[in-house]
Amino acid sequence: MNDFPIESLPYGVFERNGNAHLGVAYGEQIFDLHAAASARLFDGVCDASLLTATALNPLLAAGKKTWGTVRERCQALLAKSPGDEHFVDRAGARMRLPLDVADYVDFYSSEQHARNLGRIFRPDAEPLLPNWKWMPIGYHGRAGTIVVSGTPIARPSGQRKAPNEETPSFGPSRMLDIELELGFITGSEDIFGLVLVNDWSARDVQAWEYQPLGPFLGKSFATTISPWVVPLEALVPFAVKPHEQSPQPLPHLRVQEDFSLDIALEIDLQSAKMRNAGVSAVTISRTNARELYWTMSQQLAHVRSNGTQIRPGDLFASGTISGSDPGSYGSFIELTWRGAKPLALPSGEARAFLEDGDEVTLRGWCERDGLHLSFGECRGRVEST
Amino acid sequence: MNDFPIESLPYGVFERNGNAHLGVAYGEQIFDLHAAASARLFDGVCDASLLTATALNPLLAAGKKTWGTVRERCQALLAKSPGDEHFVDRAGARMRLPLDVADYVDFYSSEQHARNLGRIFRPDAEPLLPNWKWMPIGYHGRAGTIVVSGTPIARPSGQRKAPNEETPSFGPSRMLDIELELGFITGSEDIFGLVLVNDWSARDVQAWEYQPLGPFLGKSFATTISPWVVPLEALVPFAVKPHEQSPQPLPHLRVQEDFSLDIALEIDLQSAKMRNAGVSAVTISRTNARELYWTMSQQLAHVRSNGTQIRPGDLFASGTISGSDPGSYGSFIELTWRGAKPLALPSGEARAFLEDGDEVTLRGWCERDGLHLSFGECRGRVEST
Repeated sequence: MNDFPIESLPYGVFERNGNAHLGVAYGEQIFDLHAAASARLFDGVCDASLLTATALNPLLAAGKKTWGTVRERCQALLAKSPGDEHFVDRAGARMRLPLDVADYVDFYSSEQHARNLGRIFRPDAEPLLPNWKWMPIGYHGRAGTIVVSGTPIARPSGQRKAPNEETPSFGPSRMLDIELELGFITGSEDIFGLVLVNDWSARDVQAWEYQPLGPFLGKSFATTISPWVVPLEALVPFAVKPHEQSPQPLPHLRVQEDFSLDIALEIDLQSAKMRNAGVSAVTISRTNARELYWTMSQQLAHVRSNGTQIRPGDLFASGTISGSDPGSYGSFIELTWRGAKPLALPSGEARAFLEDGDEVTLRGWCERDGLHLSFGECRGRVEST
Repeated sequence: MNDFPIESLPYGVFERNGNAHLGVAYGEQIFDLHAAASARLFDGVCDASLLTATALNPLLAAGKKTWGTVRERCQALLAKSPGDEHFVDRAGARMRLPLDVADYVDFYSSEQHARNLGRIFRPDAEPLLPNWKWMPIGYHGRAGTIVVSGTPIARPSGQRKAPNEETPSFGPSRMLDIELELGFITGSEDIFGLVLVNDWSARDVQAWEYQPLGPFLGKSFATTISPWVVPLEALVPFAVKPHEQSPQPLPHLRVQEDFSLDIALEIDLQSAKMRNAGVSAVTISRTNARELYWTMSQQLAHVRSNGTQIRPGDLFASGTISGSDPGSYGSFIELTWRGAKPLALPSGEARAFLEDGDEVTLRGWCERDGLHLSFGECRGRVEST
């Protein structure tokens, strides 16, 4: 199956001769935009500097019209095979972070996830807080610790205090978790494209620190994104009716012709023991981006509603995407109900939270009318501190 | 009085012939580092590109040793008057944001402020949450909306719901506030220098949105910083014993030879009516940075404790600095106790929160043994949306 057909053409940054080159994934290859622009194949389409840059930011800043013409030219060039020197093998390529992330916002837009966490963190109260259905709740995360798929994740240390402990203690997190999310990347006005996001979370640290200013060091140590940014334009065939919303949002959050995206998502887990025994990763959750209550357009409208000007390279993550079925929860804290129901792995091991050596891979894809389009993978292996 | 003696030499970015130049404030002048480096006055000290850059970031990235040698060379050059062409008049200079802010963290490190806000926002509960004395509570703010002193502040709109209202509404904030803070800017390892920070806050928006993920749009519309970054090295004479801490912090937050800074701070307010009548700004609060419970070193140790690598250009703000006396509170919500005790202005006006046309100026300075060193001003005027 071809994950990267000509209808997709996601953008990424890969290494060629030690330099960072922009490219688009096309079948088993990467079309080297740096090489192609240097060979003047984009003359008349855009300034070559947008494509010889070492990150997507200049292209992001160029705006929607340029994104459209660059994409059209890519499709035209690939349709007639522009020459072997403009291609590298995708399997062997070393990928880098595709952009310099400007500001990073993490939303909380799955109702099931918000309900699950409310029940777990505040068992004696109504799980959904009164503001949740009135606006896409979110917070700013740390842009400087966003890493590309494949980067090892050192188990974070932090301060935590269990309810039965008198005083807090400091040490490696005992409740290291993941969050399965989708993120969108913007220019200065519009949505450029989407990536998979793994919002690694130290639940013990988060639980002790988060009041009253929200998550901080329980999240800031690392966030992994997939290397290929799928253009929003490629996802148009997978637009679906947005989630029903009641109460009706206030006028500034009502979006004309709004849409959600039908993107299948899954979490795969492989422990060190599985890996050493040659046992493949096991899928521990299957969900879909259409589960999200708030749409990307509403999230963006919300962020701008106070006068904020977004910047090229801003990343907005959805928040954990959990469906209503327990097999569709997007984090360990939900899947194992804070460790009360550990997952059984094929190796005979049980998992409440992540152990050292565990490798988590998020995957996403769209399928419709014979068109298959992949988000690639968003992978990270936990290492001891 | 000379606000900018040779012992200070704060760094800023100013416009010269339409270009952004790095400079240091010296008396009534700016020593143009771009011009001086181009004239090879820093040869043998550092790469000229660090000083011909349009923001402080390359110098920040160069590290502490280079900061020391550049500062020494500046002092040596200024002691012998390096030539008029290297100076511009400070009063007439248009200042820009001195750095590209990488990540922005806002702490909550004044005990009095945390207690005041706890009493106001959660009147039925213990004002200080159990975690507050165990770690410097903080959150990430929006780096992309940090502006330099003098930038007009458009009144933000937002969603808010008073406790007596059935449903929320959207519109211009009715509780626009300021927060008097100090911020420090880092290289990749060390603290480079300090600025004044005004963390503009829409209290009605904040109150409705902040649970459970913390402040978001109530803060993200704008944060003003002063244009001159005072080197930490210049502040050594003003180091004082840190605030007493009980309980004793955990080992990772114990810092050898730690210090606080004795920096006098004030908030000045001038309404449009005052300005039109030629009435000077009135000082509505006087406080001191030594009031802070958590030190800068502890804040930095906390951020790094989960493995986070800081970046050149990171900004860490203290949180509102409030003293124990009501005249030393660092925000309107505290000074007027959420509007219950409005401030009387010399114009006969009363202020619960900021009105359109109000101009707020934060000031800071150090004084000791005849040495006077200023932070300049951090100013912003509220405009209607």
